[in-house]
Amino acid sequence: MTRRSIKVFAPATVANVVCGFDVLGFAVDQPGDEVIMRLSDKPGVSLLKITGDGGKLPLNPEKNTVSAIAREYLGHIGRPEVGVEIELHKKMPIGSGLGSSSASTVAGLFAINSLMDSPLNNKELVPFAMKGEELACGYGHADNVAPALMGGFVLIRSYSPLDIISLPFPADLHAAIVYPEVDVPTKDARQMIRSKVFLKDAVTQWGNVAGLVSGLFMNDYELIGRSMTDVLVEPTRSILIPDFYKLRSQAMKAGAVGFGISGSGPSVFALTKDKETALQITASLQHHLKNISINSLAFVSEVNKKGPVILD
Amino acid sequence: MTRRSIKVFAPATVANVVCGFDVLGFAVDQPGDEVIMRLSDKPGVSLLKITGDGGKLPLNPEKNTVSAIAREYLGHIGRPEVGVEIELHKKMPIGSGLGSSSASTVAGLFAINSLMDSPLNNKELVPFAMKGEELACGYGHADNVAPALMGGFVLIRSYSPLDIISLPFPADLHAAIVYPEVDVPTKDARQMIRSKVFLKDAVTQWGNVAGLVSGLFMNDYELIGRSMTDVLVEPTRSILIPDFYKLRSQAMKAGAVGFGISGSGPSVFALTKDKETALQITASLQHHLKNISINSLAFVSEVNKKGPVILD
Repeated sequence: MTRRSIKVFAPATVANVVCGFDVLGFAVDQPGDEVIMRLSDKPGVSLLKITGDGGKLPLNPEKNTVSAIAREYLGHIGRPEVGVEIELHKKMPIGSGLGSSSASTVAGLFAINSLMDSPLNNKELVPFAMKGEELACGYGHADNVAPALMGGFVLIRSYSPLDIISLPFPADLHAAIVYPEVDVPTKDARQMIRSKVFLKDAVTQWGNVAGLVSGLFMNDYELIGRSMTDVLVEPTRSILIPDFYKLRSQAMKAGAVGFGISGSGPSVFALTKDKETALQITASLQHHLKNISINSLAFVSEVNKKGPVILD
Repeated sequence: MTRRSIKVFAPATVANVVCGFDVLGFAVDQPGDEVIMRLSDKPGVSLLKITGDGGKLPLNPEKNTVSAIAREYLGHIGRPEVGVEIELHKKMPIGSGLGSSSASTVAGLFAINSLMDSPLNNKELVPFAMKGEELACGYGHADNVAPALMGGFVLIRSYSPLDIISLPFPADLHAAIVYPEVDVPTKDARQMIRSKVFLKDAVTQWGNVAGLVSGLFMNDYELIGRSMTDVLVEPTRSILIPDFYKLRSQAMKAGAVGFGISGSGPSVFALTKDKETALQITASLQHHLKNISINSLAFVSEVNKKGPVILD
């Protein structure tokens, strides 16, 4: 083994990308989480500490996704005897709709895989990371973990069998993300969604999904923007986000390519053609939220091209 | 005006392309319909004759889509006084699921637009052709007329407002089409489809739509094939097609990239990587249909790259 310890960053992610519920997601350069992992002579996976979570995450190594999935991974590669010590440093808000659990799980998985001399590639790690999502959110979706592992824009064409496609995107594409500090647990946000929908609305939705994918391949910002429409999920989920339609209107006026809810919210995001517009949008949205007495965090970055990276 | 008469061919089309119900379609080089149109000193649009329809189409110029839409077009461009005589030569089966009404309407529209020195481009003719579909099928869909007018693979991203995107496709892509001579009127085929669907099935569907579009951009035959799955419409519509799943199985065994129902059926089609495989597939399917006493027609061609063409 080449290393005894490692520090890994894994990125936050924007799942759904408005129209692509459960099938599209992309990674951003910031925020994200960090995991420090050390091999130990004492067998078993232990969780030494968690910082930045405000006491919200379980320190029990069987319940915490990072340690639980590391153990699952070691069993899978036939190395259950390996001893590992883990530190999780949350650098992003929990329950924000930015793939917080995904960033932690992916950082941990990438770390343990690297310590084991990378027997699996990042795409092969996706099913393990999905188990982490199931543990954290009650639902093993891939639209956060796949882009967190692979970077860029990702399509989950199929869940059964799992079929993941990396999509191209315009080189200058930026994301402006604002997290209004209100509470929207993923489980509740999912339960709000109806299990049956009108076929005509589904047709509208897959027209937009096809349009968004085409726009990404064609580097066509206009088409990307026109396609960022969600007639099925956003009308319900937006109820949980303060002044959602006012925020959209401000973002679009400020030059956003498109705007919507990140994952199950409450974070919102805009895609832009440059960093300057992204900064103007976050400033404008944060100003609006402050006026209605809601604290917020903002993040501006390019679309992440790397997935998880080794920091140390 | 440059011409007093014109003869136009417009191609048959495969709508839906399995997963892309109402939003995807492509044109084929054959079969198709021909329209002959002549300017006349007598004002008004008259329908002189129809051949090849077995007496199925109305000769009343207000009810026939070719003449009715030619009149609509002349009114739109402010030339209602123009006199036109039309001959429609059906060269493809009616009610086959191959966009028969679309081929006639598009040939007629392209003919009248050419006789008027082409004030509109082919994309601008789509809304007129959609009115023809409404007259013929009771539903103004665009997934036959848009590819018939524009050639190639077409995405109808949105119907309101109408937003049509030409998609790329692998240069060697061929279509093997078999029309089993059983009766499946478009209106009935649409009425069989449920108006509400499970969201989880819709997610599966738009994952496949996104996969198919990605495969077309990436020239990835495997991805195109994996994405040609329809969990919503095919399970119902296939009931009307004799031995549908046996035909699929034969086509896939013979090397099809993917297989499905063309439009609302009863025609079925396979996409292939070459002409030879397409010919083997049509031979195999026709043989099977003959064994169960069903007559059929078969067509093999490349994906059509031109849309309507002037023959004379």
